[in-house]
Amino acid sequence: MKKLINAPDAVLAESLDGLAAAHADILTLGDERKFVRRRHLITGKPALISGGGAGHEPLHAGFVGSGMLDAACPGQVFTSPTPDQMIAAASAVDTGGGVLFIVKNYEGDVMNFAMAAEMTDSRNLTVIVDDDVAVEKSTFSTGRRGVAGTLIVEKVVGAAAEAGMALDALKALGERVNAGTRSMGVALTSCTVPAAGKPTFTLGEDEMEMGVGIHGEPGRRRVKLAPADQIAEEIVGAIAGDLKQTGDCILLVNGFGGTPSIELYLMFNAARKQLEKHGLRVGRALVGNYVTSLEMAGCSITVSMLDDEIAKFWDTPVHTAALNWGQRS
Amino acid sequence: MKKLINAPDAVLAESLDGLAAAHADILTLGDERKFVRRRHLITGKPALISGGGAGHEPLHAGFVGSGMLDAACPGQVFTSPTPDQMIAAASAVDTGGGVLFIVKNYEGDVMNFAMAAEMTDSRNLTVIVDDDVAVEKSTFSTGRRGVAGTLIVEKVVGAAAEAGMALDALKALGERVNAGTRSMGVALTSCTVPAAGKPTFTLGEDEMEMGVGIHGEPGRRRVKLAPADQIAEEIVGAIAGDLKQTGDCILLVNGFGGTPSIELYLMFNAARKQLEKHGLRVGRALVGNYVTSLEMAGCSITVSMLDDEIAKFWDTPVHTAALNWGQRS
Repeated sequence: MKKLINAPDAVLAESLDGLAAAHADILTLGDERKFVRRRHLITGKPALISGGGAGHEPLHAGFVGSGMLDAACPGQVFTSPTPDQMIAAASAVDTGGGVLFIVKNYEGDVMNFAMAAEMTDSRNLTVIVDDDVAVEKSTFSTGRRGVAGTLIVEKVVGAAAEAGMALDALKALGERVNAGTRSMGVALTSCTVPAAGKPTFTLGEDEMEMGVGIHGEPGRRRVKLAPADQIAEEIVGAIAGDLKQTGDCILLVNGFGGTPSIELYLMFNAARKQLEKHGLRVGRALVGNYVTSLEMAGCSITVSMLDDEIAKFWDTPVHTAALNWGQRS
Repeated sequence: MKKLINAPDAVLAESLDGLAAAHADILTLGDERKFVRRRHLITGKPALISGGGAGHEPLHAGFVGSGMLDAACPGQVFTSPTPDQMIAAASAVDTGGGVLFIVKNYEGDVMNFAMAAEMTDSRNLTVIVDDDVAVEKSTFSTGRRGVAGTLIVEKVVGAAAEAGMALDALKALGERVNAGTRSMGVALTSCTVPAAGKPTFTLGEDEMEMGVGIHGEPGRRRVKLAPADQIAEEIVGAIAGDLKQTGDCILLVNGFGGTPSIELYLMFNAARKQLEKHGLRVGRALVGNYVTSLEMAGCSITVSMLDDEIAKFWDTPVHTAALNWGQRS
């Protein structure tokens, strides 16, 4: 295992300390590093709290800040956070507007967030994200997995909360965004969880896992490595076939951590051409490592339908460690 | 070779097409993809032009836009751009204020930019960046290599140009930033140039290359993999020993492409603690994949001295594909 770490069991804590030191203007750590919270809260605004296993950085802690999340609860690598983390986070960031939990659809996350939702004193609602069209159920999920579309839900709902939308409406908006969002990924290599010390799965030198999950869960099939255009055709075909909509969309090409930018933009180019064949036009674009699987090589493609309201909230300024833009032209 | 590509000789062109499509509000491609240029030029502002071999994305094309570069000339992967590219770029973006070329110190780049500087009709000056303290000369360089510090020169000088600074003063500022900037990197794995089809170098399962160059050039020594704290101690020690300054600095922990965010923030945490021992305080921070070597695993640490003027220009809003922030709090 070749990693820039000191000890497997210290990776998350030391990385969180680095995050907090690098972005002290934006965020701060909760006691015992139970959560990462926005430094400057807005009184009365519903608080958005997400979380999940580490190893998907910058999701979620990198999205804490103005216009997005109020807190993120990191579990150990690929391990759900525990309910006490979400309860502590809610207590720290609920300023009277209640709490919206945004949860990726994995059994551990769903269960632990549900327990927190029952036990917290905060009025709260939950949005479940399940955008992965690759498989109908998976190793850690009943129903579809929540993957890179989570970023889009967090951005849009985060902007709406900042603009004054109330808790019930935020939940409805989040569910509407999720309903219009589909993703699918492909892995060229595995990743290695520090505590495990060996790759989560193995792929032959000429193989790829089509439809892989963000914890290395199996996808649809293991096939020979194919050209980028062919990969894009299959993924976009799966997404468009399931989405059954046409019009303007956000196209997110998301790197899993080990694939360089030059390939991600090449995949973006391949994906946008495929989208046109399905009557989908790229209205907004995002390319980079946002919902990763440690150092896994590969990427996912996410398509999220746009309307005027969603476009407005997507374009709103955001100031977090990982997603950062001012007033867009 | 496992890459998301169609054909090795089409990688750069298809990736540039993706970049241009994803960021059409910011940038546009020159004829024959000779350069990437800022879409909206400012009349009379000195134009900043950089460039170099591809494979280091987002450097340089990802830094084209408001507050940073006016154009970037990409060569093939790890190959210098040719003089006609810089001449065409200068012709496209010089709006009367002259041109400042920002060049990483590699023989091919320096020679080709010098030829362009002679042949272009634009009044022009050049800043050479040579921030890498690892070795005094290298495979492709006479004198020190230019690496991740280039980003800092481009950001600071870009902001100064936007604020109205004239060409001569911009060159002086760029040289002042370079003089206060030091970097050094470490590789845990090699990368594979698409046209070569095999790794640039090989490392044992327990080895790392301390002081590696961004094209995989040899560093100071090949050693056993060490804990992050020990790596940070050696790199920061080399930087501080050469820099011989104390005070506030920018700390950039730059991923080479294959190392995940969780490790980069851990390295940031390790590096900032080491800096304190040398009387260097982190006044500004940047962590991410900015000056990469395709999918190489590893990172570099860059320290750049701050003063009021440099801090002001660092903080100025920037709107590019890869570096993007509004008014900072």
